[in-house]
Amino acid sequence: MKLYDLGPSGNCYKVRLFAALADIELERVAVDFANGAHKKPPLSELNPLGQLPILDDGGHIVRDSQAILVYLAGTYGGLAWWPEHARGQAEIVQWLSFAANEIQHSLCAARLVEKFGYPLDKAAALAKAPTVLGVLDAHLQANDWLAMGRPTIADCAVYPYVVLAPEGDVDLTPYSHVARWIERLEALPGYLPRP
Amino acid sequence: MKLYDLGPSGNCYKVRLFAALADIELERVAVDFANGAHKKPPLSELNPLGQLPILDDGGHIVRDSQAILVYLAGTYGGLAWWPEHARGQAEIVQWLSFAANEIQHSLCAARLVEKFGYPLDKAAALAKAPTVLGVLDAHLQANDWLAMGRPTIADCAVYPYVVLAPEGDVDLTPYSHVARWIERLEALPGYLPRP
Repeated sequence: MKLYDLGPSGNCYKVRLFAALADIELERVAVDFANGAHKKPPLSELNPLGQLPILDDGGHIVRDSQAILVYLAGTYGGLAWWPEHARGQAEIVQWLSFAANEIQHSLCAARLVEKFGYPLDKAAALAKAPTVLGVLDAHLQANDWLAMGRPTIADCAVYPYVVLAPEGDVDLTPYSHVARWIERLEALPGYLPRP
Repeated sequence: MKLYDLGPSGNCYKVRLFAALADIELERVAVDFANGAHKKPPLSELNPLGQLPILDDGGHIVRDSQAILVYLAGTYGGLAWWPEHARGQAEIVQWLSFAANEIQHSLCAARLVEKFGYPLDKAAALAKAPTVLGVLDAHLQANDWLAMGRPTIADCAVYPYVVLAPEGDVDLTPYSHVARWIERLEALPGYLPRP
């Protein structure tokens, strides 16, 4: 099973982190991002959005980091990380949307500007960060994990750009419950260190 | 089962549309959005992000339109709209992320500025629209529906802000495959007209 991958990408790290925690073997294929290989064939045929990661499981292609987490967890991860019942799945999808929308356009966007020079509005991204982190911190004050009272793919989708947020000049120190959740996640067996 | 609802919201319409198509009864609770009721208790306790829609199923709360679609489809919709197997679920989640990220920050954002005066960057939102609609059009050239060869919650998550895009000054006429998909969706039994 191949993962078209980029080392510094938090979206790719979501998948590598989950695969490590769930002991799923992935063959990493490094993509020549600097030369735009992700925006040209053959990769643009696998993901017309021109984004990474992309999963190739024996010819079955899955794009989008959240969808890849669902695919890997549901197919190879057992029921611990992605349950069979819709109530638990919806509880997790709340956080997958939070990762795709709120986190992507705040913590992740600020890092893309600061670290990789993307032409995005860093001030607008930073302005959203206190709300995003405040909601997360309040949730983690009352819960050890994001969903279902245990580690799930929700944590794998949200953790990467939170822990990488200081690279976009976001200060995590006010968020003590987030800090303890980061410690809990990093103590899980199989944890893969962040890029 | 209560839906905290706002008539003109495309995110609320996703849920009302799906409930109509799947014949699920919802009690609509109109929220006093103009006076910020969604950002104050008791609603801000149900959804600390201060967003609508919110579902209350006998005290079980689900926030986020994509998560509500998963909850309703998986709990009350039978297997037609949200399958049991992870391969199909992941195929759908690709489009739920597309709705939460790419569509929210292009077609939806432009409409929020134009129709409701939100302080967002309309030019940046409009600049993303051709890519978003181009990817969608190319997919629909080869597929009648977004996922699994049949109507699913993926279509319910993506259709609302596409069909409402002209309200944000987005021109849909170049996208003929999108136009035919809109016709197919609007011909489904139970279709609920857009706001």
